[in-house]
Amino acid sequence: MKRDSILIKNGVIFTMNAKKEIFQGDILIENGVITEIGTTRGCAAHVVDAAGKLVLPGFIQTHVHLCQALFRGLADDVDVVDWLRGRIWPLESAHDGASIHASARLAAAEMLAGGTTAALTMETALHTDAVFQAVEETGLRVFTGNAMMDVVEPGTEMRALDTEASFRETRRLFDCWHGKDQGRIRFAVMPRGARNCSGELVERSRRFALDNGLLMHTHVSENGPLSRRLKQETGLTDMELLERQQAAAERLVIAHGVWLSEGDMEIVRRRGVKIAHCPSANLKLASGFAKIPELLERGVTVGLGADGAPCNNNMDMLTEVRLAALIHKPRCGPTALPAYRMLEMATIEGARCLGIEKETGSLEVGKRGDVILLRHDGLHCSPMAGAPLSSKIVYSLKGTDVDTTIVDGRILYQDRRFTALDEKKIKEESSRQLENVLKRTAFGEDLLRAGTLQ
Amino acid sequence: MKRDSILIKNGVIFTMNAKKEIFQGDILIENGVITEIGTTRGCAAHVVDAAGKLVLPGFIQTHVHLCQALFRGLADDVDVVDWLRGRIWPLESAHDGASIHASARLAAAEMLAGGTTAALTMETALHTDAVFQAVEETGLRVFTGNAMMDVVEPGTEMRALDTEASFRETRRLFDCWHGKDQGRIRFAVMPRGARNCSGELVERSRRFALDNGLLMHTHVSENGPLSRRLKQETGLTDMELLERQQAAAERLVIAHGVWLSEGDMEIVRRRGVKIAHCPSANLKLASGFAKIPELLERGVTVGLGADGAPCNNNMDMLTEVRLAALIHKPRCGPTALPAYRMLEMATIEGARCLGIEKETGSLEVGKRGDVILLRHDGLHCSPMAGAPLSSKIVYSLKGTDVDTTIVDGRILYQDRRFTALDEKKIKEESSRQLENVLKRTAFGEDLLRAGTLQ
Repeated sequence: MKRDSILIKNGVIFTMNAKKEIFQGDILIENGVITEIGTTRGCAAHVVDAAGKLVLPGFIQTHVHLCQALFRGLADDVDVVDWLRGRIWPLESAHDGASIHASARLAAAEMLAGGTTAALTMETALHTDAVFQAVEETGLRVFTGNAMMDVVEPGTEMRALDTEASFRETRRLFDCWHGKDQGRIRFAVMPRGARNCSGELVERSRRFALDNGLLMHTHVSENGPLSRRLKQETGLTDMELLERQQAAAERLVIAHGVWLSEGDMEIVRRRGVKIAHCPSANLKLASGFAKIPELLERGVTVGLGADGAPCNNNMDMLTEVRLAALIHKPRCGPTALPAYRMLEMATIEGARCLGIEKETGSLEVGKRGDVILLRHDGLHCSPMAGAPLSSKIVYSLKGTDVDTTIVDGRILYQDRRFTALDEKKIKEESSRQLENVLKRTAFGEDLLRAGTLQ
Repeated sequence: MKRDSILIKNGVIFTMNAKKEIFQGDILIENGVITEIGTTRGCAAHVVDAAGKLVLPGFIQTHVHLCQALFRGLADDVDVVDWLRGRIWPLESAHDGASIHASARLAAAEMLAGGTTAALTMETALHTDAVFQAVEETGLRVFTGNAMMDVVEPGTEMRALDTEASFRETRRLFDCWHGKDQGRIRFAVMPRGARNCSGELVERSRRFALDNGLLMHTHVSENGPLSRRLKQETGLTDMELLERQQAAAERLVIAHGVWLSEGDMEIVRRRGVKIAHCPSANLKLASGFAKIPELLERGVTVGLGADGAPCNNNMDMLTEVRLAALIHKPRCGPTALPAYRMLEMATIEGARCLGIEKETGSLEVGKRGDVILLRHDGLHCSPMAGAPLSSKIVYSLKGTDVDTTIVDGRILYQDRRFTALDEKKIKEESSRQLENVLKRTAFGEDLLRAGTLQ
């Protein structure tokens, strides 16, 4: 895919810059980079008419699992421990390269159609090359990597490769993929959870991330009973353990943090650890309400993520934005997480989580061309007078209001259609590959026999 | 609008009947009534191809305010007391017939496009004829009425007409409108809240409802501080007061009930009172989490509602369904409010709230033709194998997946387009009328001057 120059004309531009500027104007993107904003003199190979539309930096999801998209709806109404042990881990283990490729392509396409331009994604133990291939094809900006688990976690009973094999895979994927397509595709180091990994694995991960300037990503304190049990058994919380392992650092992004104690929040703040908040997943798996307003109050950087499709059951950023804006208000009051703050969390704060706030997350000259256009002309956004636009985006708009998605200077989705991806083929292949995966599990035949008419 | 015969062919039919039957088949609607279901022999003036689509009874919203639709986005990030006193009540008071008509038409159109076929709506003190006219034109099934408030509620400071004038308006609207269009349009008696109404007004409302077989609808225990304050001042909760006034009865639908005590829940159960649960509104106004699983456990009938557009900020039933399915799980566990249960709440239980479960709420021979078709072929619903369809509807589908809406045997929306309503005109008129309303308020000019670029 080549990067033609793009002129976005006459939209309402939410720059999401430090001055919080919003104005009517144009954006010129050349060679993947924003070169002019406001009044432009330039012309371009592609002119995108943004009249009547809102122009924002693309949404950045800080925690998803592309490899789980095939499993949407296969594990509902159970808690996270049963969900992992009974369904998701056996399903992940039954993946092959072809099914992972179909899953990642489905997830990436869904995310692009919903205005997500970048994501931090945790994959499974094996076949991660297929994820990299899929994101290379779809055009999404990603940080991704193989999930490492070299010890059995009590409760979920998940375990994958041993330490050496896990780490060999990590190093190999890094060598093959990190920095591809001018840095659009990057590798990140992913011990799955503090309790899935030996001290040795965490230490080697930490060093590898440090030596190569990589992100680290892990799950922390998602489930209440599991968090309490582990504290009783070991005397340490996940965050205390990570700090002791010297892994609590600015480059660490932790998913969830629902059950962070006051002491844990202080570790997060002191070490500059970043939080990926996943409201749909935390509710659907009955995990709880993460203390997001309290973490923001401490100055912690928080991003958003849809997590895996089977705990959501979609991967639509605007759904997460609205939900995060709503669910903390009963505890913290109606002014908690107001609309504009939520837009920051979905864009520039997400970029800060991933350490790419100098490259993307706001619309400014010199940044990469990660831009979305939103319609706001539906009945659900009417009338047009009086209401702040940020409020409209957060509380009224739906994922289907995303009109155009541009990543790294390439128009991937326009007028609510993919420019290059074949949506029909992606859907067909996802159904075919899911059937293959199910046939390789102990419960797949039963599940297919039970049918969908429930 | 006439009622032609309609044959819905070859869809997956969620009957929502007592046997919870789901099967592939056809539905024949003649003269507004379902006459065949399953294998039909009939032909019809309109044939609707439902292949690949889901066929459900239309959604029933049990608490909305059509007259507030114009105020979407004008009162964000404040609690319900400030929201009413500072913005919504002054705005309601500035309505005239033309602006209420535009508001009700906008809301009804939005609801129809999202698959809502029936609603219980509370309007404001005056100009309620304009609401009836708008719903007559749009084709939505409604129970509606004027909000009565003859005393000043401490906190919100709302007061409208005196007792006699309130009641005169109630009687007049009943005489003009109740039972129109073969009963599609009905009047309901609406003391706004237990604290907005004198004992005399409630007593007259109760008798009037009883004598004429009408629903009563009121707000109960929505806001925590207000509920506590009133208990301190009077020694009674809203429900205790309503029971003492003999108004707690099967025909009473109460909105919210967020702060119902154990004793209140027992009154609700014992008296057969119905609950309208409004999850978006309860979160956005920081009211709290209504104890819905606990009420269901007691056998209380619970429906759903979007409430007014400015506390949501949309009127989309699938948004409320998903939210209600999610927000109680952290407190009550992952199996609380599973997917199929939520579909019941959105359809047949909603009909029970309104006392029309023999007329609508499920797809059965003899019931009115209130039917919707849903698409489930988007990326966000893929892959197609394995997952229960009820889970797909509740957790994955969006309002924009509604394909067709049929109310009382009339196709009002098909292939995601209105068959008769002019969407562009509805939106334009809503913007024009909002500007008129704003000019009649003290803060409207400031609000328009501040602009939307925030």
